[in-house]
Amino acid sequence: MELGLIGLGRMGANMARRLRKGGIGVVAWNRNADVTKDLANETGLKAANSLEDLVSRLKTPRIVWLMLPAGDVTQQHLDQLAPRLAPGDIVVDGANSYYKDSMRRGQALAAKKLHYIDAGVSGGVWGLENGYALMLGGEKAAMEHLTPIIKVLAPAPDKGWLHCGPVGSGHFVKMVHNGIEYGMMQAYAEGFALMKAREDFKLDLGAVAEMWRHGSVVRSWLLDLTAEFLALDQELQGIAPYVADSGEGRWTALEGIEQGVPTPVMSLALMMRFASQGKDEYADRLLAMMRRGFGGHATKEKTK
Amino acid sequence: MELGLIGLGRMGANMARRLRKGGIGVVAWNRNADVTKDLANETGLKAANSLEDLVSRLKTPRIVWLMLPAGDVTQQHLDQLAPRLAPGDIVVDGANSYYKDSMRRGQALAAKKLHYIDAGVSGGVWGLENGYALMLGGEKAAMEHLTPIIKVLAPAPDKGWLHCGPVGSGHFVKMVHNGIEYGMMQAYAEGFALMKAREDFKLDLGAVAEMWRHGSVVRSWLLDLTAEFLALDQELQGIAPYVADSGEGRWTALEGIEQGVPTPVMSLALMMRFASQGKDEYADRLLAMMRRGFGGHATKEKTK
Amino acid sequence: MELGLIGLGRMGANMARRLRKGGIGVVAWNRNADVTKDLANETGLKAANSLEDLVSRLKTPRIVWLMLPAGDVTQQHLDQLAPRLAPGDIVVDGANSYYKDSMRRGQALAAKKLHYIDAGVSGGVWGLENGYALMLGGEKAAMEHLTPIIKVLAPAPDKGWLHCGPVGSGHFVKMVHNGIEYGMMQAYAEGFALMKAREDFKLDLGAVAEMWRHGSVVRSWLLDLTAEFLALDQELQGIAPYVADSGEGRWTALEGIEQGVPTPVMSLALMMRFASQGKDEYADRLLAMMRRGFGGHATKEKTK
Amino acid sequence: MELGLIGLGRMGANMARRLRKGGIGVVAWNRNADVTKDLANETGLKAANSLEDLVSRLKTPRIVWLMLPAGDVTQQHLDQLAPRLAPGDIVVDGANSYYKDSMRRGQALAAKKLHYIDAGVSGGVWGLENGYALMLGGEKAAMEHLTPIIKVLAPAPDKGWLHCGPVGSGHFVKMVHNGIEYGMMQAYAEGFALMKAREDFKLDLGAVAEMWRHGSVVRSWLLDLTAEFLALDQELQGIAPYVADSGEGRWTALEGIEQGVPTPVMSLALMMRFASQGKDEYADRLLAMMRRGFGGHATKEKTK
Repeated sequence: MELGLIGLGRMGANMARRLRKGGIGVVAWNRNADVTKDLANETGLKAANSLEDLVSRLKTPRIVWLMLPAGDVTQQHLDQLAPRLAPGDIVVDGANSYYKDSMRRGQALAAKKLHYIDAGVSGGVWGLENGYALMLGGEKAAMEHLTPIIKVLAPAPDKGWLHCGPVGSGHFVKMVHNGIEYGMMQAYAEGFALMKAREDFKLDLGAVAEMWRHGSVVRSWLLDLTAEFLALDQELQGIAPYVADSGEGRWTALEGIEQGVPTPVMSLALMMRFASQGKDEYADRLLAMMRRGFGGHATKEKTK
Repeated sequence: MELGLIGLGRMGANMARRLRKGGIGVVAWNRNADVTKDLANETGLKAANSLEDLVSRLKTPRIVWLMLPAGDVTQQHLDQLAPRLAPGDIVVDGANSYYKDSMRRGQALAAKKLHYIDAGVSGGVWGLENGYALMLGGEKAAMEHLTPIIKVLAPAPDKGWLHCGPVGSGHFVKMVHNGIEYGMMQAYAEGFALMKAREDFKLDLGAVAEMWRHGSVVRSWLLDLTAEFLALDQELQGIAPYVADSGEGRWTALEGIEQGVPTPVMSLALMMRFASQGKDEYADRLLAMMRRGFGGHATKEKTK
Repeated sequence: MELGLIGLGRMGANMARRLRKGGIGVVAWNRNADVTKDLANETGLKAANSLEDLVSRLKTPRIVWLMLPAGDVTQQHLDQLAPRLAPGDIVVDGANSYYKDSMRRGQALAAKKLHYIDAGVSGGVWGLENGYALMLGGEKAAMEHLTPIIKVLAPAPDKGWLHCGPVGSGHFVKMVHNGIEYGMMQAYAEGFALMKAREDFKLDLGAVAEMWRHGSVVRSWLLDLTAEFLALDQELQGIAPYVADSGEGRWTALEGIEQGVPTPVMSLALMMRFASQGKDEYADRLLAMMRRGFGGHATKEKTK
Repeated sequence: MELGLIGLGRMGANMARRLRKGGIGVVAWNRNADVTKDLANETGLKAANSLEDLVSRLKTPRIVWLMLPAGDVTQQHLDQLAPRLAPGDIVVDGANSYYKDSMRRGQALAAKKLHYIDAGVSGGVWGLENGYALMLGGEKAAMEHLTPIIKVLAPAPDKGWLHCGPVGSGHFVKMVHNGIEYGMMQAYAEGFALMKAREDFKLDLGAVAEMWRHGSVVRSWLLDLTAEFLALDQELQGIAPYVADSGEGRWTALEGIEQGVPTPVMSLALMMRFASQGKDEYADRLLAMMRRGFGGHATKEKTK
């Protein structure tokens, strides 16, 4: 069993390592040839010199997995790749692509008799060791061809992966996953902030987090991580209070509005990130001015 | 008709002016005697040297209006005042007191056969000219005795004031008024911030606000104020993005939770003020650390 | 001065009336010819038999104002209308169209040397009498040609209308206007609900609203309306607790997310409408089941 | 090692079982003597006939653990118990008491030279088997005396329990724990509701939840429970969309407001429960009426 892998960033490189350990043949291409060469030395994968080279070294029906940034970069590589493939070949997009883009791409490839599988991949840096949670959308036949590879990437052959449904459903489920993640993270952050504010109790927040990991209702993997860093430093003075956001968090919030389904927690979690980025400042200036206007700092009379 | 007035801050002084213009006798006391003297010269009110002096110069049944900061200051003056009053006298609390405190105070005074009226006062610096909206709680008989004074303070003898109900109801209605105010202010601020962010349209926000004042659904007094300051400067670069909050906004949010009634807009408006004050920073540091934890910046493996 | 008017629904018909009273010539077309005929008899407007007829009866450069439902209906009429117009003619879209659609339409018409003006119209049923707030986007020259008509529709010749900026900016400003409206409405609704819940005070909510109209910080046109219906009935038992939402409210929420600007109040106001429509029910079922799961109703042991 | 246990409801009875299995002596009292007798037969605990009997059968310094509903019931038992205890005895409150009540109670007991320990207990029905997460507040010496009992109740002798700090801190940490729980639950519920609404993907939500349990970022114990019930039925048609709330959820929201710390996710999660209980209906009626007012259903003209 083998696949072509395009993109050897942190995620792609670790996935290549896990695939190789699992006995899967990997033909890889990366824009930086040195990265590919190093990884070839480390794992025994085959380094391709170009997209064409990669395609030519795979047997049909080919499996080509794109592990690139979502958006333009993924689209550009897809545009270059598609004309070089043969009917029946399978393209997997492992980026955090917007599921509506995936649905459109799936249709475009289907017109060329190519199969498209959208793969939402979760697991971050722990995936190499623990396996990746995989949320997959696409046709059944293509999925079956891909399955041996999926079983290696997943936490266990029968766990942590799912053929969710048609093209788009994999990235859709991953998007919702990330929306939930935003809400959970914000819930923990608010709770720990409340405990920090209660200074008279002098709580050891690392110890609280560690304790909650065992037997409490809020135990989770995110709590495991939190307990780990709070044990080292609960003041976090060296950390900037700036929280980046990404496409999936925004798309989930958009989805709630488009579907007409209330998603207050997901949406607010996102907006608090916007606020952390200073995007609330103009509104705050306006509010300060309004207060001044009716609160008594005004210097001239208002005539209605 | 006359009353005793304790407290000649910005609100108290302007109320004294309006009362004097309306022909009401005012015996006033302020901790700074110079302020009292100046206002006596300006308006013809009688300056009292002490609380005792103030009480002694009023005919029974006396009306004594406290116009002091809510909380401890109001309570202390009430404690000094009450023993000097006679059964049947009326105490009016014009502060933004918590309505639960007012209910308690009303009971305490009733035990001494004193009447208590809680007066929520709205109008800010415009009150002197336009009159004050007055939300009053207390017994009917005491209210009737107070009415001639209220008619002078209000925007019109039959407009802008209401005997809401029993003791506490005046401050309760004022509290809710301010909660609504928070929500409305935040709604405008978000809207103008969205328009500011859309830089390519180069909108003149002062002109937009001015236009909305006429015929639009969102026209209001707060919009009048907003149009005025945006006409002068829509960049607001010189204004700190810091929005103070006050008791009433918090109490309204507490009330929603205690009553089990959803108040998402009032509560979020309050919380965005907290965020403007930097109170979201610890949570944001935690979120940044969590993202680092699973996002790939971690330097050691997590063993579950 | 004259214009062609397509669409004589409630808004369109009242606008025709106001235009006729202001001395503007109106050539109108409506899918129901009887409506057009009746309005012709009432106002002296000229009834067109078809779009072609309407176009042929206007002098160039023509002004054709569409007053149709946003979306497909507006687009279809635009598609039929555009080929019949001559370079230099002006099309005005008075619907609550999505401003991104307007930007696209403006570009499409510009390619045919037609001018497009997007007109956000506020004022509802009161517009006939009080005039309409008008938020306009488009090229300066076209706007100048349209101005005499705008001055008749607006609350006053120099008030309540604005050339906001380029094509799209009129509908954009109207969209934000409606987003603010959602937030303000929700703020009032929460406040009155809190007062209703406090049963022991037996508040007369109609009287409270009426009182706030004078001198309070929260006075507004929405409060005027609220005071009017609460004076008649504050129980509202006959009203279904169902709040519809519309495009502009959703688009404003989308805009906040796309711009990365926090809009918690606008977004929550929208989501509470979704909840009133029962769209929160599946989430609530899940929550009830989760509570059952850890709260003790489970009948079998969970093995982790 | 032994303790007195007051209250043998579901939580209390299971804790008695776990204590007995761990070799701890238990003298128990319950208002229903049959329950005590049955549990005595099952576990070998000693049944007390009365509070006095319970006290008399324990050696000093006694440990008496109250496992009763928070609020009045706990307070009444405490009032009856305290006079019967001797200086140095320890009272543990295992209810979900408000931490401010616990601080007050701790002071009252300290005046009588009694020790008070507030114990937040998490774990629900799984606690018997898996152990209880225990969050404890109180003096160090009393805690040390209690520790052998805690080690039996906890998931492991050195895991899942913490002496958080002074009296009140145990219930405070438990309160925050439950606030986080509300936020996490709502995040999951929103996510699954979004997936349910996307009908065209025909997602198997039980399979999605099960998959996420392995390797995903959102894996947690709450997800374990959710996967279990969704596997059986993902329609949940038989479940009422009604979500109860409890003291801790409300207190956490109050705490955020009192501390001035933004807790949007916790607060919104609570308010969506209020909405599920129909507490949004009056606000929704008002909103429907406002829309009618300006939207064109009004039958008479408004004169400003």
